[in-house]
Amino acid sequence: MKSCVGIIGLGSMGASLARNLARHGYKVSVYNRTFEKAEEFVKDNPDDGFVLCRTLEDLASSLPAPRVIMSVITAGSPTKAALEDLSKYLSAGDLVIDCANSFYKDSMALGKEMEEKGILFADCGVSGGKMGALLGPSMMFGGSREAWDLCQGVIKDACAKAKDGEPCAARLGPVGSGHFVKMIHNGIEYALMGAIAEIYDLFRREGFSAEECAQIFKKWDEGDLHSYLIEITGKVLAHIDAKTQKPFVDVLKDETRMNGTGTWTVLSALELGSSAPSVGEAVFERIISSEKELRSAFKPAPAPEISLDSSDAMQALYLASAIIYSEGFDVLEAASRKYDWNLDYSEIARIWEAGCIIRSDFLPKISEAFKKDPSLPSLLAFPAFEKIEEENIQALRRVVARGVLGAVSCAVLESALSYFDELTHPLPLNLLAAQRDYFGAHGYERADEPGFFHTEWEEGGQEVKRQ
Amino acid sequence: MKSCVGIIGLGSMGASLARNLARHGYKVSVYNRTFEKAEEFVKDNPDDGFVLCRTLEDLASSLPAPRVIMSVITAGSPTKAALEDLSKYLSAGDLVIDCANSFYKDSMALGKEMEEKGILFADCGVSGGKMGALLGPSMMFGGSREAWDLCQGVIKDACAKAKDGEPCAARLGPVGSGHFVKMIHNGIEYALMGAIAEIYDLFRREGFSAEECAQIFKKWDEGDLHSYLIEITGKVLAHIDAKTQKPFVDVLKDETRMNGTGTWTVLSALELGSSAPSVGEAVFERIISSEKELRSAFKPAPAPEISLDSSDAMQALYLASAIIYSEGFDVLEAASRKYDWNLDYSEIARIWEAGCIIRSDFLPKISEAFKKDPSLPSLLAFPAFEKIEEENIQALRRVVARGVLGAVSCAVLESALSYFDELTHPLPLNLLAAQRDYFGAHGYERADEPGFFHTEWEEGGQEVKRQ
Repeated sequence: MKSCVGIIGLGSMGASLARNLARHGYKVSVYNRTFEKAEEFVKDNPDDGFVLCRTLEDLASSLPAPRVIMSVITAGSPTKAALEDLSKYLSAGDLVIDCANSFYKDSMALGKEMEEKGILFADCGVSGGKMGALLGPSMMFGGSREAWDLCQGVIKDACAKAKDGEPCAARLGPVGSGHFVKMIHNGIEYALMGAIAEIYDLFRREGFSAEECAQIFKKWDEGDLHSYLIEITGKVLAHIDAKTQKPFVDVLKDETRMNGTGTWTVLSALELGSSAPSVGEAVFERIISSEKELRSAFKPAPAPEISLDSSDAMQALYLASAIIYSEGFDVLEAASRKYDWNLDYSEIARIWEAGCIIRSDFLPKISEAFKKDPSLPSLLAFPAFEKIEEENIQALRRVVARGVLGAVSCAVLESALSYFDELTHPLPLNLLAAQRDYFGAHGYERADEPGFFHTEWEEGGQEVKRQ
Repeated sequence: MKSCVGIIGLGSMGASLARNLARHGYKVSVYNRTFEKAEEFVKDNPDDGFVLCRTLEDLASSLPAPRVIMSVITAGSPTKAALEDLSKYLSAGDLVIDCANSFYKDSMALGKEMEEKGILFADCGVSGGKMGALLGPSMMFGGSREAWDLCQGVIKDACAKAKDGEPCAARLGPVGSGHFVKMIHNGIEYALMGAIAEIYDLFRREGFSAEECAQIFKKWDEGDLHSYLIEITGKVLAHIDAKTQKPFVDVLKDETRMNGTGTWTVLSALELGSSAPSVGEAVFERIISSEKELRSAFKPAPAPEISLDSSDAMQALYLASAIIYSEGFDVLEAASRKYDWNLDYSEIARIWEAGCIIRSDFLPKISEAFKKDPSLPSLLAFPAFEKIEEENIQALRRVVARGVLGAVSCAVLESALSYFDELTHPLPLNLLAAQRDYFGAHGYERADEPGFFHTEWEEGGQEVKRQ
């Protein structure tokens, strides 16, 4: 028998993680706020040797010191309340790991609070959904080295393994960095899903059935686009609704919900002065999808015909995906700089190679690129990615133009393309600088001379140097 | 002599507002943190009868009760600190009006603090830049009716007047609503400026000179696009740099700065669950423009040739502007609902008709539309706007497609178009709902049956009704 671990919360993620650890030989103490749910869980899994705990105090008593307890409950105040309560029963040197989708600043605050009590605290992003948590998720750990040393055996057992057998888990930096990286993972996921949906929509508008689309995505999953999201897109599109015998997707409402991580990615990018426009469009698209009253004010407009080249579509999605990953890493870099986290981008890409939702054949390429030159300021500037850009940019332009002309919203694909064009071409924002100086006397910078200038627009047009 | 008014802060906005009030016959007491600046200001304007105050206590003593004091200093902690200090010298029933670009939640908090001291507090957005503040800005007032009654004479004298002579100022709702509406004004301004810059960029890429572009914008300013921003675009583009004799815009860096209101608009839209994607793209475009290190990693890519139809360009900018205004009003509606402000959208459009940066021939149309039917959930659903959409949508599609194919980033124009297409067509987000259920067991809604469902994807594919 390996060491003992405590799990708080037996929702779909917590229950799966508990079973995962039990299967790896750990003696797992389990606690759930509604005790009946914990009882039922232990009864349903009689061979896993779970230790059933009625209270947080029981949970603490059931574990030898230094305790290792993973919390997998709703982020925000439920997590904060439970861990503050739990801390009463802990001793100095015990470790609490928050595995919820917590906002990284909340984790930093809670970490400080726990630290003052002598309790070790870590934030660990867990990606892979219910099945990932059961079979091996990608685990993004933020915490001290001391905390990592105490639990890295457990985490490396529980997590997914990459093709080379390496565990998809790592200590990324201090408290906060785990949930920040997980948040960016989810932001990338939002934009990738948006881009996939737009490509799917283009095919449907050209007359392809759900089943035909399923075949396309299944084929793509065998090529360069090989990834978990493309794989499940093929499966979902092939699924037939039992009730109506129609394609499953066609019986669903065209709206979707969110947890908060996509929104947080955009908020964080804005706060850090970094750019994540494709994630922004993906989030806004989801918001619009749920604005029933707003959407009901419009009758569907007539849609122009479109024609879509299937090979163009694949190339477009391929390049857009590369750009979306790059946006995510840009925001990671901004955070790493601000918080002095010294994030290892190669390592982050590596632990995303298996277990998580955005796993794809891009990730080994990204990991290798950042390993070769960790100082390059953008993934898109790496030679391997420049090649992808050269080979696929025209296809992306053609596909987006088809959506634009054909009234098929391609907000995420367009935004990815714009981001690329904004990076690789001059911007017309010299005009904005001039306008701002005109109406607000905000000043401007010249390209030919250092300093900060203002023109007296309505008082003779003289230029004045301010600094 | 009219009544007395106090002004805190003699920066470009405060100084202009003080002169504006003096010209309208008010006895204005002026205070500035750096006293020398106040002294100089009073000396430079000897005929305006300013009362020079060395301290906030002096300022308070110089005014009869109930005092009316306008604060025009930097938003955030400087405003908070100055007004808390000032409040020591005020009596119950005095009124302090924050005219800075404060974040509306800060104003709500400060308002509560002042209220507890018995002091009336209002937040007033002031738009129009330095010249607007001098000659008559658009003034967006948030505060109690009691506060409004105390100062509406002053504000209606100071503000801009529309063509029909009506003052461009109004009480919009309680404290917070003034700065919120001003923030949305600025968000719209960001997106309009981005759209104008993109259209300008398309012309330049087709080979037009700055002077030729100036002529185009000057001509447009005489037609449907008549607006302050189009007017100053023409002027700025025609301006020749004295040092180099080149077009002025060509000697500026292609980057621009921001204050915070554009970013706040996006944050607020996200927080309220409303959509402002074009504002988002405009903000991200500005962020990218200032990311020197990131941009320097790329050498300019070869740019495909483009051809642009000038009449298409005008129509595209016209429709994009309508969509951008609509996004802004959508966010206003979300805030009005959340905070129970009962905002009058017709009145807001009316007070934007003169004085402010986004004044244009759209605003009388918007004001009239909301007057006719205040309950319609989107500006774009009004008959007058449906006509604009029908007449201009194909031009917008063609122009955006040219940018897309020609490597001219049109992030804001594209985003406006996507927003329109997202509202007027079904969305492919049924696929996203299915994917989320597949990997995260998040559940979905069917179009043909109420309730919330989940499919056991990897355990037989059965559908389970959850609620």
